[in-house]
Amino acid sequence: MKQSKMLIPTLKETPADADTLSHQWLMRAGFIRQNFSGVYSYLPLGKRVLDKIERIIREEMDAIGANELLMPAMQSADLWKESGRWDKMGAELMRLHDRHEREFVLGPTHEEVVTSMIRDEVKSYKKLPLTLYQIQTKFRDERRPRFGLLRGREFIMKDAYSFHDSDESLDTYYEEMYDAYSRIFTRLGLNFRAVIADSGAMGGKDTHEFMALSEIGEDTIAFSSVSDYAANIEMAKVPDYYQSPNEEPKPLEKVATPNQRTMEEVANYLDHDLDQGLKSLLFNVDEEFVLTVTRGDHEVNEIKLKHHLNADEVTLATEDQTQDVLGAYFGSIGPIGVKNDVKIIGDFAVRAVSNATCGANEDGYHFINVNPSRDFAEIEFADIRFIKEGDPSPDGQGVIQFAEGIEIGQVFKLGQFYADKLGASILNDQGKAQTVTMGCYGIGVTRTMAAIVEQFNDDRGITWPTQVAPYQVHLLVINSKNEEQRTLGDKLYQQLLEEGFEVLYDDRKERAGVKFADSDLIGIPNRITVGKKASDGIVEYKDRQTNDQSELHESDINAFLKSRMDR
Amino acid sequence: MKQSKMLIPTLKETPADADTLSHQWLMRAGFIRQNFSGVYSYLPLGKRVLDKIERIIREEMDAIGANELLMPAMQSADLWKESGRWDKMGAELMRLHDRHEREFVLGPTHEEVVTSMIRDEVKSYKKLPLTLYQIQTKFRDERRPRFGLLRGREFIMKDAYSFHDSDESLDTYYEEMYDAYSRIFTRLGLNFRAVIADSGAMGGKDTHEFMALSEIGEDTIAFSSVSDYAANIEMAKVPDYYQSPNEEPKPLEKVATPNQRTMEEVANYLDHDLDQGLKSLLFNVDEEFVLTVTRGDHEVNEIKLKHHLNADEVTLATEDQTQDVLGAYFGSIGPIGVKNDVKIIGDFAVRAVSNATCGANEDGYHFINVNPSRDFAEIEFADIRFIKEGDPSPDGQGVIQFAEGIEIGQVFKLGQFYADKLGASILNDQGKAQTVTMGCYGIGVTRTMAAIVEQFNDDRGITWPTQVAPYQVHLLVINSKNEEQRTLGDKLYQQLLEEGFEVLYDDRKERAGVKFADSDLIGIPNRITVGKKASDGIVEYKDRQTNDQSELHESDINAFLKSRMDR
Repeated sequence: MKQSKMLIPTLKETPADADTLSHQWLMRAGFIRQNFSGVYSYLPLGKRVLDKIERIIREEMDAIGANELLMPAMQSADLWKESGRWDKMGAELMRLHDRHEREFVLGPTHEEVVTSMIRDEVKSYKKLPLTLYQIQTKFRDERRPRFGLLRGREFIMKDAYSFHDSDESLDTYYEEMYDAYSRIFTRLGLNFRAVIADSGAMGGKDTHEFMALSEIGEDTIAFSSVSDYAANIEMAKVPDYYQSPNEEPKPLEKVATPNQRTMEEVANYLDHDLDQGLKSLLFNVDEEFVLTVTRGDHEVNEIKLKHHLNADEVTLATEDQTQDVLGAYFGSIGPIGVKNDVKIIGDFAVRAVSNATCGANEDGYHFINVNPSRDFAEIEFADIRFIKEGDPSPDGQGVIQFAEGIEIGQVFKLGQFYADKLGASILNDQGKAQTVTMGCYGIGVTRTMAAIVEQFNDDRGITWPTQVAPYQVHLLVINSKNEEQRTLGDKLYQQLLEEGFEVLYDDRKERAGVKFADSDLIGIPNRITVGKKASDGIVEYKDRQTNDQSELHESDINAFLKSRMDR
Repeated sequence: MKQSKMLIPTLKETPADADTLSHQWLMRAGFIRQNFSGVYSYLPLGKRVLDKIERIIREEMDAIGANELLMPAMQSADLWKESGRWDKMGAELMRLHDRHEREFVLGPTHEEVVTSMIRDEVKSYKKLPLTLYQIQTKFRDERRPRFGLLRGREFIMKDAYSFHDSDESLDTYYEEMYDAYSRIFTRLGLNFRAVIADSGAMGGKDTHEFMALSEIGEDTIAFSSVSDYAANIEMAKVPDYYQSPNEEPKPLEKVATPNQRTMEEVANYLDHDLDQGLKSLLFNVDEEFVLTVTRGDHEVNEIKLKHHLNADEVTLATEDQTQDVLGAYFGSIGPIGVKNDVKIIGDFAVRAVSNATCGANEDGYHFINVNPSRDFAEIEFADIRFIKEGDPSPDGQGVIQFAEGIEIGQVFKLGQFYADKLGASILNDQGKAQTVTMGCYGIGVTRTMAAIVEQFNDDRGITWPTQVAPYQVHLLVINSKNEEQRTLGDKLYQQLLEEGFEVLYDDRKERAGVKFADSDLIGIPNRITVGKKASDGIVEYKDRQTNDQSELHESDINAFLKSRMDR
């Protein structure tokens, strides 16, 4: 394509409201424009990148037998009421009504629509397993859209849904999908991790999030220093690796700790290490109170607590509730002498402390020389804390490190949640009605484009991997008014097109500095510049990722570029 | 693709609410499903056809230098208020608001969005001409969605917008786009006509609609029996071809016509032909009254009247208004003796009558022996009637015939309407600010799919043209339990895939009758059936369009199919 014929509105300055590198570079390089908060247009270069990402996704989906279809953006509110998500999604759900006052939803995902279709069209186990996918514009009314394409209100998703007659079939297909996702993100050139994630409220089982590693990621990943273990920090299990207590227990003693409320204050006041103190927190768990005990240097993980108790809701008790239930305020509560109607859960690490400190359920007092096996009667131990860097990896290989990640995909064993709600059943091989089992699998296409830019940029612009670059070759003529340069440029353009390369040809009547700056911004991996040595048939080649430059004779260009493509 | 792995829910019966052939066959063959009124899912086969249509559109758009981009479905209401369409589109516009009560539109088209982008990003004539296009889901809240995909509420459009610094540039590009559209619909295999159409209220100039000929079309096309002239019946000019009067004028005479109100009644009563009577109608035209006079066998075309008078609104006067203004009711009004404040417009055909009849502006009376050149003082003649079959074609070649058509595309010289409203101006080559000139160009992608089916079906199902068929080859094994048949089927499937054919392989354990019926429904153009002669390597070939059948040896299949593709 000739650059003079293309809308590529590059910007010299970084837009004031562009808050991440991907947002800044995609704006500056003319790939996107914001229409309004959280809603973007994909300009010609941006559209080409999306197409390339989508093509790779399609190839891998088709390779595992998924059927592409296209469901509508508008969905009937009735289906959402059937599934319960009409209420659950709250203000994030975009709602509208038609001229007859019938209510609709602009789909953020399509579980309801696709499940109702399977309910109506598939009656026998013989048609299963079946996987349907689409690449489609989705809507979500984010409270605070930000980070450019990373958290928008209208965005493109690949969403896939698989249907099965048994958990085993789902398990098998889940692995295939997991592998396909790994291939997709590998082909896209991303540095990513598949992490164990929380299956949340929708009744599912296993789920993995695919995370592109990035400092601006909103999620923290705990991963092994040596193996491929990785989990969302909320889900990373801490193994019960603690040594048994090796100190001689001393007599339990209550001491005054006036005005010492935090773990740090108490530890300082009593002159011991933070991990020698025991932190107690009171929670409302569904309709009951639960007291947790962790080591002073650990944090309670409410999601683990919730899973351990199989609870619907876990929230910290108020200061007043704590006073009512335990007779003391936050800083002085503890697991000794608690009335029987409060369940006590201790983290595994607590079991291993000796001669520790804990609140005495009396304001301004703590117990010292606490030894759980001796002093805690009604306590249950479990893994209820957040993992920390340096903890052993749950798979026994290496230690845990942290990284931030951008969620670009998720695979999810939904189970029968939607099929139950919407009545999707089949006749099984015994001729009996049976609820369908489902998986769902998403990739944020526009978000993936941003994640790629977060990983591929330098101080001059974007450095696209070849497979998703808007073009393979950027051909520049330094001085378009110079006859020899223009002639060689035009000739090379035709020649490269005939060889099957995707070429952006900067034929504009702009200064060389403008052309180079735009070219660096746009970030096409291979740049051929026709300049002063045009008369000798010599051009300059630049690798945009390494910024290495070299001279090439025009007769060598094809072979050279071909070798670059094959890498 | 193996048919056993694909969602193709064919139906034995025609769905009760499917009101056109395309709706019926696309439902029955498992290409689409209705989600709710006017909103459809495109199942795997349907999606494949859409992809093929879109690919052809993209190739032709790219060939004329159009830039593909993707603008959002959600549009700011403010832009629509600026253009005036927020009010003009009324209930057809899908509206919604976000959690902050900001108003949005779900775009039925994107003139406002694209014009505002050009306003912001393009400052100089040097960047023009520029054409942007997208293929996107659109929304329109039709009062009465019907005819399946032909009149839906969520549908796919290709919409393109071109920007120019002069009318000449627009005129040139309009021709290129017109030609590209002709190539697209030709490649899609459609029997279509490009017809002159009404540019309507948006201030544009030339416009052509591309019509797929079909009995169920909602528009009537007037076309020449010999040339390529074609126009929407509303727009077809009637040449002033009438012979001058050749009868001797007789004396004007007022006669009683008691209770004769219609043209037919008066003609019968006075015993003359219908074309000897003159029909008079009173219209409200903006704030004034206009009396039209046409021959009794002709109909007034209000759009022509509106264009002739350069009026905003033309409506028929009420019976009371007619009585007030002309002193008689509908059946007895006429152009003789009308007070001066009523403008009179006669159709060209009226100038050529002699000794005709017209109302006398006195209830129950008509004039006979009316001769316009003698009796009509203040009349202006113009082409204000609908063309009829048999009229000479306006281009002087052949006579007019009628056909019904489905509008599948439109090209439109918008001029400066939107650019004016939204303030899109550039600096011209004199350095002066100048409003941008625009064209817009649409193709209904999903509607085109339906139009193809309207033209390509028989009593067993769809008969897709090869270029848009979901697959090129349908491979059937009559008895999947028969080892020889299945082995040959599997072998041919692999072989055809390796040769690059798109193959749907019916490997299902269904009866042969079910397979043949489904195959006829789906309508893939080339069918290869592996049956009893599998042991001899003999298969049956069927051409789905002609239903011709023949036997082929397996070794000849590739060459045979290749020759079919090349046709």
